[in-house]
Amino acid sequence: MSEQRVAPVAALQPPYYAVVFTSLRTERDAGYGETAGRLGELVKEIPGFLGEDAARTPGGLGITVAYFRDLDGIERWRAHAEHRAAKEYGRAHWYERYSLHIAKVEHSHGFVREAREA
Amino acid sequence: MSEQRVAPVAALQPPYYAVVFTSLRTERDAGYGETAGRLGELVKEIPGFLGEDAARTPGGLGITVAYFRDLDGIERWRAHAEHRAAKEYGRAHWYERYSLHIAKVEHSHGFVREAREA
Repeated sequence: MSEQRVAPVAALQPPYYAVVFTSLRTERDAGYGETAGRLGELVKEIPGFLGEDAARTPGGLGITVAYFRDLDGIERWRAHAEHRAAKEYGRAHWYERYSLHIAKVEHSHGFVREAREA
Repeated sequence: MSEQRVAPVAALQPPYYAVVFTSLRTERDAGYGETAGRLGELVKEIPGFLGEDAARTPGGLGITVAYFRDLDGIERWRAHAEHRAAKEYGRAHWYERYSLHIAKVEHSHGFVREAREA
């Protein structure tokens, strides 16, 4: 959600997990940015967390993809008290709708432009 | 990449596949929007294609998640001539880097706000 030019999380060696969270926001802010920033720090403490990418359209469609080594880490994050509280608050205030997909990565591939072409 | 308020693809009944494409764009446009729109139409013709979500930050980080019923559909899309040509052009002109993750969805969950709260 930053305007900095941040590179996406690199393709990793499978297997690992991708947690895809897509959402349509309400028009309300209600502390969203602050909580999102706090959660973005907390998730880094979860064992097996591998990184996260996030983007949102001006129209309110957001996509966050978090990568974890295994389901254990995803379950720990799901059960994390602050994360749970934020999700409950989010359903009450921030989200018109959302979809969550927990998926095991079977294949991955990366591309990095050669420096001479940059 | 639209400013319309578009709802994300709904959570589907697993198993199905998510193809997560994350990228950092170059500063060049070079026909990107036109090609992206064309590919967005073509992929709908692939058997087993279930939908697609896309968002991009102002800083150039983009995330596209396409959902397919099975690997056959993903392979057909990978082998599609116009898609292949666009990827090659993209590596030459549009992308600083990208990551592709092909993942089998094991769990999914959706939330839709009650109309009375909208």
